[in-house]
Amino acid sequence: MVERVYNFSAGPGTLPLEVLQQSAKDIVNFSNTGTGIIEMSHRSKEFMAVTEDAETLLRQTLKIPNNFKILFLQGGASSQFFMIPMNLLGGTKKATYLNTGTWAKKAIKEAKLFGDIDVAYSSEDVLFNNVPSNNQYQVNDYSEYLYFVSNNTIYGTQFAEFPDSEKMLISDMSSDILSRSIDFSKFGLIFAGAQKNMGPAGVTIVIIRDDLLDRTPPNTPTMLSYKTHADKGSMFNTPPCFGIYVVGEVLKWLKEKGGINAVATINRRKANLLYNAIDNSEYYRGHADSASRSLMNITFNLPTPALEEKFIKETSAINLKGLKGHRSIGGCRASIYNAFPEDGVKKLVDFMDTFKSDNPA
Amino acid sequence: MVERVYNFSAGPGTLPLEVLQQSAKDIVNFSNTGTGIIEMSHRSKEFMAVTEDAETLLRQTLKIPNNFKILFLQGGASSQFFMIPMNLLGGTKKATYLNTGTWAKKAIKEAKLFGDIDVAYSSEDVLFNNVPSNNQYQVNDYSEYLYFVSNNTIYGTQFAEFPDSEKMLISDMSSDILSRSIDFSKFGLIFAGAQKNMGPAGVTIVIIRDDLLDRTPPNTPTMLSYKTHADKGSMFNTPPCFGIYVVGEVLKWLKEKGGINAVATINRRKANLLYNAIDNSEYYRGHADSASRSLMNITFNLPTPALEEKFIKETSAINLKGLKGHRSIGGCRASIYNAFPEDGVKKLVDFMDTFKSDNPA
Repeated sequence: MVERVYNFSAGPGTLPLEVLQQSAKDIVNFSNTGTGIIEMSHRSKEFMAVTEDAETLLRQTLKIPNNFKILFLQGGASSQFFMIPMNLLGGTKKATYLNTGTWAKKAIKEAKLFGDIDVAYSSEDVLFNNVPSNNQYQVNDYSEYLYFVSNNTIYGTQFAEFPDSEKMLISDMSSDILSRSIDFSKFGLIFAGAQKNMGPAGVTIVIIRDDLLDRTPPNTPTMLSYKTHADKGSMFNTPPCFGIYVVGEVLKWLKEKGGINAVATINRRKANLLYNAIDNSEYYRGHADSASRSLMNITFNLPTPALEEKFIKETSAINLKGLKGHRSIGGCRASIYNAFPEDGVKKLVDFMDTFKSDNPA
Repeated sequence: MVERVYNFSAGPGTLPLEVLQQSAKDIVNFSNTGTGIIEMSHRSKEFMAVTEDAETLLRQTLKIPNNFKILFLQGGASSQFFMIPMNLLGGTKKATYLNTGTWAKKAIKEAKLFGDIDVAYSSEDVLFNNVPSNNQYQVNDYSEYLYFVSNNTIYGTQFAEFPDSEKMLISDMSSDILSRSIDFSKFGLIFAGAQKNMGPAGVTIVIIRDDLLDRTPPNTPTMLSYKTHADKGSMFNTPPCFGIYVVGEVLKWLKEKGGINAVATINRRKANLLYNAIDNSEYYRGHADSASRSLMNITFNLPTPALEEKFIKETSAINLKGLKGHRSIGGCRASIYNAFPEDGVKKLVDFMDTFKSDNPA
């Protein structure tokens, strides 16, 4: 049996081994039906129950109020970049965006196709090493919503507190959903690609306040209207069945671990281990400003690119995989989502210490 | 161990057991990497190879010429209904559609948002029990393309021969791709949701002639332009990784079975078993006109709805599952895609004979 590696990949990212093992069983024979989960009709009572269970568990886990619909969509978070303004701005309206990284920037580009977009803050000139606090930007009075990316996977920054605004918030939570609690009263819409903290690539979860479902302009293609999917319980067309199934299994696993608050505590502990290792040395330098640090993606540099390359090679050799930083900023990145084991973080921290001693700057 | 059922579901449909078993291994530990296939970075060399292999095998299997791009997209075939006219009609152009069933009708509805659509043929008044031959319709001279649904899953009809037109053909082949060979010289674009004959729900394959990639109007959302995905080898954003992986495994399985021509022969044999059982009785009545009969979905009725209900219940009890017809037409439907075993068809035919004797009309 091959040893399971510690997978620091930013996404698709590591999933709980128990979930993988259960999926392996169900893919051949789901719940003793004599049929695999990926070959069952989406309208079978068995699969309808899988979807309903996943939705119910997600609602319970995140305490999602009843006036929000949960949609299981396709197309990745990238499709939400245009679907949100297409459905909510109606061509002539304004919205405010915070430009805190690659994914925010892409969302802004798409939003400009549908409305008048005010970019109230940008950290682009400092290589997106921070997210703003509330007093660092102003939201235009005429804005329909304030859009922000909760956690910036590439740069390793995160809003420790969600923005405080009178405007309805819309957030891309692809890389930190399920890692902490959310006060939905401030939000209009939250979305997340599953492949970081919830499941496999190919399913995107949209949680939308139901009064927003009627804003879609006429002549919007049927598949691009949120209402289409809300009205049919994500079954207007064949949904990404396997993705929904795995999300359900991840939610069961999360519940067994004690739910959101329990994992939030563990997430903080894991991130602190790494940030302490960085702060207690001159050797490792964190990319993100202290106040903006992400608990999900820890970005750091070594004294030289040559040492970074050596570090990545040597960590990989001891089964600490996927530590290479995103090509936009280089360096190293440790993505430690909910399912990433604390032991793997300890092993990395130990190695960082050894490497520093063995390879003086 | 629970007995594997014969799964006549129309889609998601049955997959080869060998593919399910291999997927079960790889989902926990892909190719001895110590990481599951659904938790690997889509940009890892291992997963890039999975995608390239799937694409190469598809190109070989269907003899796809080099001037066609193969895209692995999300959003289901239903998203192609609007993406095709959005990308190819540019708002003011004409196209011709053949209305041969539910999916054709939905495609026509979306196309009308983007261009002047001529519906040159409709079998709606006879509950879509046929598809036209070439002399039954005329393609408007100004049409950019002729759109048709190769196989109509719900009604059990299929174009035995593809339309013969000077116009470029565009076809929804969701329910019969990989079941027979295709002469690409007549086509501009072919698409198919995977969940019937290729893999799990959640990945849609688009095969597009490369000169069409430049027709997309400006201001089209980035994710909705075919060129976006073609330029990045389906890796502009995180693709539906697991779906692509399974499609690759299904293609390997198909190759081992002898390829398209070998399965086409078996498909004809399987369908003939059922159509003979229907034709040799007054008891079972096929829905589709003889010349339009599908080799993938065999639709039929019994003398009364009560007998149909009893038939479906009794077949289910002997592990012949999913024979209930679509709610649009009722009755029974046997979907016998590539992966459906011939033995299952024989078992059904035997049971049909017994049921007829035991339950006189």
